[in-house]
Amino acid sequence: MANTERFSGVISPALTPFKADLSPDTERFVKHCNWLLEQGCAGLAVFGTTSEANSQSGAERMALLEALVESGIDPKVLMPGTGATSITEAVQLTKHAVDLGCGGVLMLPPYYYKNVNDDGIFRFFDEVIQRIGDDALQVYLYHIPPQTVFGFSLDLIGRLVQAYPKTVVGLKDSSGDWNNMEAILKNFPGFNMFPGSEIHMLAGLRNGASGCITATANANPAQLRSLYDNWQTPQADDMQAAITALRKTIQSFPMVPALKEIIAHFKEDDGWKHNRPPFTQMPAEQVKDLLAELAKHNFSLEPSKLAMAGDD
Amino acid sequence: MANTERFSGVISPALTPFKADLSPDTERFVKHCNWLLEQGCAGLAVFGTTSEANSQSGAERMALLEALVESGIDPKVLMPGTGATSITEAVQLTKHAVDLGCGGVLMLPPYYYKNVNDDGIFRFFDEVIQRIGDDALQVYLYHIPPQTVFGFSLDLIGRLVQAYPKTVVGLKDSSGDWNNMEAILKNFPGFNMFPGSEIHMLAGLRNGASGCITATANANPAQLRSLYDNWQTPQADDMQAAITALRKTIQSFPMVPALKEIIAHFKEDDGWKHNRPPFTQMPAEQVKDLLAELAKHNFSLEPSKLAMAGDD
Repeated sequence: MANTERFSGVISPALTPFKADLSPDTERFVKHCNWLLEQGCAGLAVFGTTSEANSQSGAERMALLEALVESGIDPKVLMPGTGATSITEAVQLTKHAVDLGCGGVLMLPPYYYKNVNDDGIFRFFDEVIQRIGDDALQVYLYHIPPQTVFGFSLDLIGRLVQAYPKTVVGLKDSSGDWNNMEAILKNFPGFNMFPGSEIHMLAGLRNGASGCITATANANPAQLRSLYDNWQTPQADDMQAAITALRKTIQSFPMVPALKEIIAHFKEDDGWKHNRPPFTQMPAEQVKDLLAELAKHNFSLEPSKLAMAGDD
Repeated sequence: MANTERFSGVISPALTPFKADLSPDTERFVKHCNWLLEQGCAGLAVFGTTSEANSQSGAERMALLEALVESGIDPKVLMPGTGATSITEAVQLTKHAVDLGCGGVLMLPPYYYKNVNDDGIFRFFDEVIQRIGDDALQVYLYHIPPQTVFGFSLDLIGRLVQAYPKTVVGLKDSSGDWNNMEAILKNFPGFNMFPGSEIHMLAGLRNGASGCITATANANPAQLRSLYDNWQTPQADDMQAAITALRKTIQSFPMVPALKEIIAHFKEDDGWKHNRPPFTQMPAEQVKDLLAELAKHNFSLEPSKLAMAGDD
């Protein structure tokens, strides 16, 4: 059955908690994902870069995804990362997500080789989509040159959308390059583009973006949701300014370890501090600096509406 | 039981043939690997970059490795690539190789994230080696910045060798940077360094390298073996010049598709032409150009000793 629903709003690339032995911590993961939805996230892009997805095996990711659905989360709000360097694994992970009823998947290009061209990337997606062969599949392209080096050119996006207009329906742009986001919005009206950082959220929404998929939604989902709900109000620019300042503070630290430290601190749960290599745990001194910086923003995980309006 | 043997000589990162449906072609793979050994390769670095290793799932690679051993190839000559972006998969692939009796493994660093530091890479190898916990494990580091962007710094190599002197025993340097190779040879005497291209084979051997691990050994193993056997003779520089010229010709085409076209042509076996995305098949016109260029070198897969000596 064709899937005609599209994602919109604030989507969190949920962090993956690990136990002390570095195995995935299913219980904390399920709890965190439910909290993100309660706080106003419209969807969960589980197994993205922030989720340390590629630091996990396919089997580990599939088990975590099943645990989310079993916990009662509507699979329609789930947009798992199912990209891989091989068609074999991309097909396995994507089919698993579609079979579970996920609303969409966020797919990296095959990121090992660097000297690839658009024909090769097109061929990869063509093979995967053909092998899934299911109208329920909704692919969001994951454009993240800071990690993959190459990404999706405008020409390639156009070819994929033309070949699979009901399947290739959107893109997360983590290039950090507003000109690229703007060009996608202009060239592909109706295509669901999500900036990969809330720094571009308001500009995105004013130019037709569908919301935002951003790492820091793990720590300030409510504040981001508030901007999404109020982007056409006179307060929007002030809200964006506060959000941008907080984002710049957080991203001045190693992003994933920092987000885990923030959750560990504000939820008083040291079980959140573990991450897998190649990440390392933040030194205590750096954590102290992070928390001191956050205090300057009156940061809290669940801010009151008053605080979010900038009344401090 | 501790493994004290080290690899040396010409090692071929064996190509992986695929069937028309893109599944691994086990029969052609086993035949090709046996041929490479007959032609003088001292070892097979199966599942490297040239092997389209990361375009295959772990399960596919493990099945191919088992087929090689079942075909009668001594596992001691096998140096499978077992790197992965997750410790989970790296441990699974590495343990499988050690359990099969492989002489060593060639391990990529965890290559998804780009903003990693030496501590994070060290932590990855530390976790994997500890989890394997087997004296038989011999790790060769796979330094290939053209694909992974970051690699192994001299400092990091030193830390790994110091922590695991009997396990971290060598490195393949595919940086293309002779200065880096020379620095490794100078800083770590006794460490088994293999240039990742035969362009640096003679200079490497003169400075203590252990041989060469090179993609083009799939197409001209005998010629490379001949240089390895004769590097201390007066003919060595002329042999290196001929080998370098041929390498430069081949690498002016897309390397993996070109090597498959060469084997398909000279073995009269079109079953060799398939590759997995993100690679694409070479257009017929480009194949024609490639073969015309090779003819200028009097290229053949199994040259006579006379031809190899430059008598043309």
